Amino acid sequence: MTVKRHIVTVIGLGVIGGSYAMSLKKNGYTVYGADCDEETVRKAKERGIVDDAATSADPFIPLSDIVVIALYPKQVEGELGRIRRLLKEGAIVTDVAGIKSHFTEKIIALMPENTDFVFAHPMAGREKKGIDYADDAVFKGANFIITPSEKNKQSSIDAIEKLAREMGFRNVMKLTPAQHDKIISFVSQLPHALAVALVNSDDRQFDTPRFVGDSYRDLTRIANINESLWSELFLGNKQNLLSSIKEFEKCLDVIKEAIENEDKETLEKEFVKATKRRTEFNKEL
Amino acid sequence: MTVKRHIVTVIGLGVIGGSYAMSLKKNGYTVYGADCDEETVRKAKERGIVDDAATSADPFIPLSDIVVIALYPKQVEGELGRIRRLLKEGAIVTDVAGIKSHFTEKIIALMPENTDFVFAHPMAGREKKGIDYADDAVFKGANFIITPSEKNKQSSIDAIEKLAREMGFRNVMKLTPAQHDKIISFVSQLPHALAVALVNSDDRQFDTPRFVGDSYRDLTRIANINESLWSELFLGNKQNLLSSIKEFEKCLDVIKEAIENEDKETLEKEFVKATKRRTEFNKEL
Repeated sequence: MTVKRHIVTVIGLGVIGGSYAMSLKKNGYTVYGADCDEETVRKAKERGIVDDAATSADPFIPLSDIVVIALYPKQVEGELGRIRRLLKEGAIVTDVAGIKSHFTEKIIALMPENTDFVFAHPMAGREKKGIDYADDAVFKGANFIITPSEKNKQSSIDAIEKLAREMGFRNVMKLTPAQHDKIISFVSQLPHALAVALVNSDDRQFDTPRFVGDSYRDLTRIANINESLWSELFLGNKQNLLSSIKEFEKCLDVIKEAIENEDKETLEKEFVKATKRRTEFNKEL
Repeated sequence: MTVKRHIVTVIGLGVIGGSYAMSLKKNGYTVYGADCDEETVRKAKERGIVDDAATSADPFIPLSDIVVIALYPKQVEGELGRIRRLLKEGAIVTDVAGIKSHFTEKIIALMPENTDFVFAHPMAGREKKGIDYADDAVFKGANFIITPSEKNKQSSIDAIEKLAREMGFRNVMKLTPAQHDKIISFVSQLPHALAVALVNSDDRQFDTPRFVGDSYRDLTRIANINESLWSELFLGNKQNLLSSIKEFEKCLDVIKEAIENEDKETLEKEFVKATKRRTEFNKEL
């Protein structure tokens, strides 16, 4: 049986943390927020995204059944170190980090007895950063990944899965941290690398925006990228991302060579393969 | 002074031809359609997309002020050869092909005296093919390129520009065929090559659709690709597309090497550059 949990503290009220707070409050939780930026704290309170907020989470932690650390991956360990002594018995802590393997063991080692850390990655976001762009609508129908640890109680995993579903996520998948980081390097980090390289390879001989169609618009939307967060994500998943880039390059080489050799048959074969995969993909979603 | 032109024949009632017909009819033109597929002809008439249609354009050509050849690039020359003797004095012929240099001279040479061919590329479309997916809404706010030839009368260019604006296109740009093919290799063909390579590089160790976010969805939408048309477009623009792919690869290499060297500074620099360009781009559109 899952114990009903009432009080949540969200640390970091950016796009993701702000959207968590917004959604959880609508779902009837008491939501406290913390952010190092005073202006963000003021906005969160003014807009009713939280029941209360402050620049430090300390007063809220001892009251909280669930604590969401919605900070950059590198900040999670430090923040947990600061608040761990304040966690109440039975508290669940969760994160939103886009990479997992690099800190999983360290985080687990920090957790006091009778508390539980459930690693989570909400696969939704926006190109913009900050509370002004928080919007729980982005969670609707999106994917959510949990990377359970051996220490996790089933009830804690269930509680975070329930939270995800309440916020509107559709698929809640469970992977090991290693599996998570591998697939994320392909479905998320590689597309960002391609979008950035595409925009940066523009020789800008012409006024590009006047000549684009939907394809260029779609492929470059995510080239508008938070450089601090994404350089951290890329470097924190180095080997997987390099492999994904190399696999991509092999497939691009097939196309390139087919063009060089005027090999229409191979081109068509590659296009049919991609179309088949992308069409199946549409059906599944 | 542009002479008002009333009667248009659209040859090829696929996604683009069908959308042209639909839009021009709404704009008060008398629209005739031709398509080699009987079922398409029947649907076009039944749905009122055209005033009349047949499997041959022959009966309509002598009546038409404007003829739109909405066929694949390779078919344009042959179709024009067939209908050229039927064109009325002063008729304007236009196309919708996504590559221009390869046939411009041959097409111009085919045109009878007192007729004019205005090369055009509507930068809009859909992944699906056929009249069922024709929808003039895709033209709204889209870009339209005309590649004027030395033989063109200004009044003919103006007439096609007017047609484009009536159909909802926003920017109507003029380029030489060489310029057109160069920029198209970057803004349209390269993104399609990347989307196909991305989807095909999936090792499918996991059930990909369950782990994707918006980024992968956006970057792969156009991997659903018409293989006959796009292999023709790629091979018909070989040198430009190969250059665009090579420039892209250089920029991807910068990112790859930065990851290998754990060079956060370079990564951030590339991300900031891409963000700046993509943001300017949003403003302009």
